Amino acid sequence: MSVDQERLVPWEQTAKVEVRFEEIIGKPALRLDCGKNLGKIVIAYETFGELAPDGSNAVLIAHALTGDSHVTRGDSLRAGWWEDIVGPGKAIDTRKYYVVCSNVLGGCSGSTGPCSPHPKDGRPYAMRFPPITIRDMVRAERLLLQRLGIRRLRLVAGGSMGGMQALEWAVMAGDFVDNVIAIAAPGAQQSQAIAFNEVMRRAIMLDPAWRDGWYSPDDAPRLGLGLARMVGMITYHSHLSMDMRFGRERVPGLPDGLAWAGYKGDPVFQVEKYLHHQAEKIVKRFDANSYIYLTRAMDLFDIGEGRGGMLGALRQIKARLLLVGISSDILYPASLIANLYRKAQSVGVDAHFALLRSPHGHDAFLLDTKPMSEIIEDFMRKGGLM
Amino acid sequence: MSVDQERLVPWEQTAKVEVRFEEIIGKPALRLDCGKNLGKIVIAYETFGELAPDGSNAVLIAHALTGDSHVTRGDSLRAGWWEDIVGPGKAIDTRKYYVVCSNVLGGCSGSTGPCSPHPKDGRPYAMRFPPITIRDMVRAERLLLQRLGIRRLRLVAGGSMGGMQALEWAVMAGDFVDNVIAIAAPGAQQSQAIAFNEVMRRAIMLDPAWRDGWYSPDDAPRLGLGLARMVGMITYHSHLSMDMRFGRERVPGLPDGLAWAGYKGDPVFQVEKYLHHQAEKIVKRFDANSYIYLTRAMDLFDIGEGRGGMLGALRQIKARLLLVGISSDILYPASLIANLYRKAQSVGVDAHFALLRSPHGHDAFLLDTKPMSEIIEDFMRKGGLM
Repeated sequence: MSVDQERLVPWEQTAKVEVRFEEIIGKPALRLDCGKNLGKIVIAYETFGELAPDGSNAVLIAHALTGDSHVTRGDSLRAGWWEDIVGPGKAIDTRKYYVVCSNVLGGCSGSTGPCSPHPKDGRPYAMRFPPITIRDMVRAERLLLQRLGIRRLRLVAGGSMGGMQALEWAVMAGDFVDNVIAIAAPGAQQSQAIAFNEVMRRAIMLDPAWRDGWYSPDDAPRLGLGLARMVGMITYHSHLSMDMRFGRERVPGLPDGLAWAGYKGDPVFQVEKYLHHQAEKIVKRFDANSYIYLTRAMDLFDIGEGRGGMLGALRQIKARLLLVGISSDILYPASLIANLYRKAQSVGVDAHFALLRSPHGHDAFLLDTKPMSEIIEDFMRKGGLM
Repeated sequence: MSVDQERLVPWEQTAKVEVRFEEIIGKPALRLDCGKNLGKIVIAYETFGELAPDGSNAVLIAHALTGDSHVTRGDSLRAGWWEDIVGPGKAIDTRKYYVVCSNVLGGCSGSTGPCSPHPKDGRPYAMRFPPITIRDMVRAERLLLQRLGIRRLRLVAGGSMGGMQALEWAVMAGDFVDNVIAIAAPGAQQSQAIAFNEVMRRAIMLDPAWRDGWYSPDDAPRLGLGLARMVGMITYHSHLSMDMRFGRERVPGLPDGLAWAGYKGDPVFQVEKYLHHQAEKIVKRFDANSYIYLTRAMDLFDIGEGRGGMLGALRQIKARLLLVGISSDILYPASLIANLYRKAQSVGVDAHFALLRSPHGHDAFLLDTKPMSEIIEDFMRKGGLM
């Protein structure tokens, strides 16, 4: 198998290109789940296409853990992280729909998060930032849409952490959303995923440069965040996808035979070199404290909490719902998603399920864009959205 | 499901009980794969049962990554790591067989490894220790058996890294071994497993206490080794086993609701508490540099290397061979083991395959001892070993 390198990591454009994005600054009535109120927040967002005069064509796209508002290139030169799904003539067609994508609350790509200045002293919040939840992200997104004059969403779509937001949209804003697509996202974070997230947080905290969160941007916990990303990347692949891509191939130029080239940090196998490359890339574009907060938000995710459990939450859904499982996903196995689908059906939700057949694991929704497009288009067509 | 805590971690007896073990010190002709010669080495081992006068009842058990020579309790009070499989009246019956189990070369439970004194200066080898391979471990085991006067093995058995050794025994010592049981071990280390191992090594190296390997026993890289163990433990479980055991259960005493209890290191979820507990346990009984060397030995494992590939290696096997896959193993999926079995069959090996059906993942060979016993007993019976 040959996978094009650029396509395999579409969201990881580390080049510093000026991105057109707008900010909404306001003092919203945004009471967080933890009980605190952040006061003034900034939401960085981008829009693509034109809002219809009757406001009937708005679509919200929610990004995954290390994503941002740049879902597609739009007028900019930089490719977006879902370029092949969202754009002119794509499954989510920006000639027809007004697409909004914002950076999540707690993120580090323009929206208020741990890097933002604390109103009291102007220093970064760092670990003083209050814990946030997926529901808080959705509240911030809702606020943004209100400011943009959007009164109804034709569609909310997202994968992974974006899929969690999509599910919360379905539950929290039953009358506001017509269609929801949640890809590779469970109804509640699972044990193993919590375990991986905890390992990643500890990797960051183990780096002496983390300094309890008080690092300067010039001296960030690069090794710790890089190590966290390495763990994450394994969970986004599958056994098969790694085997197909790297096998036991060694880094060229090393001595042959069984001898280990040493411990000094030179990777022996190509798969190690790949992980280190991913580590180097993430530290150029992502903030370590944000990584801690967003992974914790995922752990706290459970649509059933405070709503009479999973079925109680699903009963509140009025939107047409598409759940997509990925056949080789080791982080959120397709069986988990199928199980959520059956539960949704059992309480009368207009729920649909699709299996994205791919060897590429969790990240297949970003990588295998052809079958991903077909699944989305099928759902759109049947719902009169195309 | 209820799993008894003690049974779930049978090899992790951290109590400092005096273990009867013998040492063999010698200056063997043990040329390592890397080309170096360690000179004098110590092999810590234990034996159980009596060697028959004609030497026809010797069995070798090989341990996994963090195991040791204490496979069963024998005369000691401390339970062994495979207590329910090896012992009087067990599947591998110590009333009938003379069972030998040694700590691997490069280990830290008595045998020569990175903690051992370097002959030149008496300080620990630390990272000056030469890289070792699974084949080197087998050579050291062979040497031990020679010193013990054992000229033939009725059986070699092991799981995980122990299964890798068993496979190497089958290939390297075709005339010496009658039967081989390799459990949850592939014919060559796979990409994803290399990736996890690299992450674990980097966790150790990220700990400032590691000091390029020059830590003192009192100031070892506890957090780094602990973090490595946390990663390892996830891969030894399965999605299902973690979900069954921990679900989304929270640590008692924390505030209710969605608020995060803070970053100060208090786990929020029981699964996190479990992982931290495992981290605290490993640092009491295992050496960080050893962890680095042994995981690298696993990465370098490929029975086909230098032997004309996998089929070339399998052709050298004369022993009767049982390969066991575990249905929920995420580290070495059962399909991988079944594939190795088919290859072995295709070149005429007297190969057998058994699927251990268990939700407990890779560690099921240590945990689900009843079906594990049945599989081993079946193989023993059909081979006239019972």
